[in-house]
Amino acid sequence: MSRPAAMSGFPEFLPAQRTVELAVIDALTRTFELHGFASVETRAVEPLEQLLSKGETSKEVYVLRRLQADRDGDGGSDAGIGLHFDLTVPFARYVVENAGKLEFPFRRYQVQKVWRGERPQEGRYREFTQADIDIVGRDTLAFHHDVEVARVMAEAMAALPVPRLTLQVNNRRLIQGFYAGLGATDLDAVMRVIDKLDKLPADAVAKMLVAEAGLTDDQASLCLQLAEIRTPDTSFVERVRALGVESSLLDQGLAELAAVVEGCASVSGDRVQVVADLRIARGLDYYTGTVFETLMEGFEGLGSICSGGRYDALATDGRATYPGVGISLGVSRMLVPLLAAGRMTASRSVPSAVLVALVDEESRDRSDDVANRLRARGIPTEVAAAPQKFGKQIRTAERRGIPFVWFPGSTGSGGPGDPGDTEGRADQVKDIRSGDQVDADPDTWTPPTDDLRPQVVVSTLRQAQDDASSTTRNKEQQQ
Amino acid sequence: MSRPAAMSGFPEFLPAQRTVELAVIDALTRTFELHGFASVETRAVEPLEQLLSKGETSKEVYVLRRLQADRDGDGGSDAGIGLHFDLTVPFARYVVENAGKLEFPFRRYQVQKVWRGERPQEGRYREFTQADIDIVGRDTLAFHHDVEVARVMAEAMAALPVPRLTLQVNNRRLIQGFYAGLGATDLDAVMRVIDKLDKLPADAVAKMLVAEAGLTDDQASLCLQLAEIRTPDTSFVERVRALGVESSLLDQGLAELAAVVEGCASVSGDRVQVVADLRIARGLDYYTGTVFETLMEGFEGLGSICSGGRYDALATDGRATYPGVGISLGVSRMLVPLLAAGRMTASRSVPSAVLVALVDEESRDRSDDVANRLRARGIPTEVAAAPQKFGKQIRTAERRGIPFVWFPGSTGSGGPGDPGDTEGRADQVKDIRSGDQVDADPDTWTPPTDDLRPQVVVSTLRQAQDDASSTTRNKEQQQ
Repeated sequence: MSRPAAMSGFPEFLPAQRTVELAVIDALTRTFELHGFASVETRAVEPLEQLLSKGETSKEVYVLRRLQADRDGDGGSDAGIGLHFDLTVPFARYVVENAGKLEFPFRRYQVQKVWRGERPQEGRYREFTQADIDIVGRDTLAFHHDVEVARVMAEAMAALPVPRLTLQVNNRRLIQGFYAGLGATDLDAVMRVIDKLDKLPADAVAKMLVAEAGLTDDQASLCLQLAEIRTPDTSFVERVRALGVESSLLDQGLAELAAVVEGCASVSGDRVQVVADLRIARGLDYYTGTVFETLMEGFEGLGSICSGGRYDALATDGRATYPGVGISLGVSRMLVPLLAAGRMTASRSVPSAVLVALVDEESRDRSDDVANRLRARGIPTEVAAAPQKFGKQIRTAERRGIPFVWFPGSTGSGGPGDPGDTEGRADQVKDIRSGDQVDADPDTWTPPTDDLRPQVVVSTLRQAQDDASSTTRNKEQQQ
Repeated sequence: MSRPAAMSGFPEFLPAQRTVELAVIDALTRTFELHGFASVETRAVEPLEQLLSKGETSKEVYVLRRLQADRDGDGGSDAGIGLHFDLTVPFARYVVENAGKLEFPFRRYQVQKVWRGERPQEGRYREFTQADIDIVGRDTLAFHHDVEVARVMAEAMAALPVPRLTLQVNNRRLIQGFYAGLGATDLDAVMRVIDKLDKLPADAVAKMLVAEAGLTDDQASLCLQLAEIRTPDTSFVERVRALGVESSLLDQGLAELAAVVEGCASVSGDRVQVVADLRIARGLDYYTGTVFETLMEGFEGLGSICSGGRYDALATDGRATYPGVGISLGVSRMLVPLLAAGRMTASRSVPSAVLVALVDEESRDRSDDVANRLRARGIPTEVAAAPQKFGKQIRTAERRGIPFVWFPGSTGSGGPGDPGDTEGRADQVKDIRSGDQVDADPDTWTPPTDDLRPQVVVSTLRQAQDDASSTTRNKEQQQ
């Protein structure tokens, strides 16, 4: 095999990077489970007709074909299946398929890979991991679940060792009620144009609101003033009221958005800030009430890394409709740039907290025995692969980031070449960072809690650059 | 959406079943990490040329095509990629691709879905989960890692709540050395024929050994006698010696197999038995020394659910070769039949240990506060969706299997309609299985450890059938 090249759009991690990803996924699922969300996994494939019912995404689908389908003469049996491009379409299908066996409102989390046949570009991948939570009701779903979903995801994100996140919340009823209240007739057109504020200056958008959405200059100005409102608390309500537009849909939207922002107040803080941002519309998606987007500090160019909202009908099976509210975190979208920039790594590339040294091949049982005693008490341990000089074995631990090296003592039997050692030497354990070496018993010794598992190490951008260049230097010196 | 049907060959789980799968995967990865194995995930796709280098598997590959590839005029950009059909081929590629960044010997575990475009049949799926461990060296890999891999997987399997497993070990050097020692010339042919003992009677195999492998009747008889040897300890060595065949390769094989069986003796027991079984050959696979197969009691018809062995070259990149030893557990292959038979389920379908009751919609904050205090101490908790009568809320908990319902007391402020309640009622928690209800403080109350997370419930086949029919009866009564 010649050395294969990485495949564009299909990111893969080295073990230390994968350790960071696992820690992030563990932190997320722990929070989801604390709030009663059950894990669901769906198959990777769906019928094409299911995948294509959202027209806009059709160009992104990977279609599957059995390599030998023609030869077997049953090409039709797999015809029309493709890889899912998100976790919402398969979850909607799962809910309808299993509705009789699920308890509603049904809370589920789902952490899985999804695939999109897009041209790879910065922050876009062909294979990536998403972490979704949704709450789905049968026929009805109370509004307080919107607050719940926002709070759970904010709490989950606050536990992540990533740059500060801002969860921006808005409400479709609020903006549509506002547009209707000021006399707009094509509400979707207004929303579509307002959505362009990300890319176009305000005066250009104002002109488009007149030209494409049929607004007067005054109406357009009010829409832009609405979109400028962004508050970390419920003071947005007053500012909207001050614009003098009224409608009952607007009232409902204001009350709902205020409830979400207020409900997240206790979670909003240094790690995750929850704000009302009246520009968020989630363009073409099918949301009907609450909408979410999330930006990561210093990585705003990635766009939203965690989005979602309320939909009145996630699915319907003719007998019932299933309204839902959900939010989807782009795990790869968030982590791949952070890992590539060296902003996060793990304290070691292996789970092992201890490397048990090996005196000689004949005493491997002795070293294995120490390792098994440590493992029995939950301490990840490996045994040296070969009985090299202890200095070499210590350097092996160092290269893997293993903090402790264990030296088995003599068994006390006093070998023939060691007549003075009839009482045996105790085992010793060395912290190779400090050099401290102490007597230790494999049935009682315990490493500091922080050393038990690999820790996620976060560095600032500046540190990361320094580390990267020093690593390069070290490598050059070694070669 | 009309009610979709399950897709043959793509098993999916209900939440309680998924809880079992998660518990199994957690138990496996916990053991793997205790032994220093690092997690790796590889992308789902590989270049077709990579996938097809093992000719025999080519008919199983799912090829990918971007739905709009033709329209975009870049049909070539994704040409020739397919979904991986195992975790060994992608891992071999990963090792070569990242060899400069890995520490050897490199221990990794990998739990991922794989896909095969096979015709679905009992125990065969088109999408399924595998859990692999491998240890890979650069240029050399000491034999003791064979013992290590067997012991780690045996220990991991012993922690699973599944029927008794038998890990059968053999050694290619042993059987090839034996065949060579008795004068056979086409060793592969002998092995291929012996491999048919699973399906054909011994005398038919004996005739084939003469006809297809060119053996004499005496030689064929010795081969069959070798294949009959199966011992739970190292006594197989004596029995092989008694057959009077000699070769240095046989000696090496006997010593290696004895070392594996001996090394696993402390793990071998009620849950997992490790035996030397001299019939195991792993047919067409590329193993060069140790080989493994595993049968599950009562489900022998599934064939081996956990297989692997030693290969002298997992991969090579022209500059180095990477010998390895590994074993792959078919998680879906093991679990899907057990779950389908009702042999395993979870004690509840949600993570929640507590349902906090809701007095009225106005006091939702009070119930949320209780829930957050419980969650802060690691107790998974949900709040009732609606302020129904307490009896109904208790039945909601019952249906989900949630063991505790929490009743928030009055706040002690003495509402206007409740003048006698100026001191407030304490919170109470009810174990809905026993009916016991006691005063409780959300900052100190803790459920029994077994109730904290859903437990895997194992039933015998007989119990499972009873449960299934009683569930059916209950459902009929409700309707």
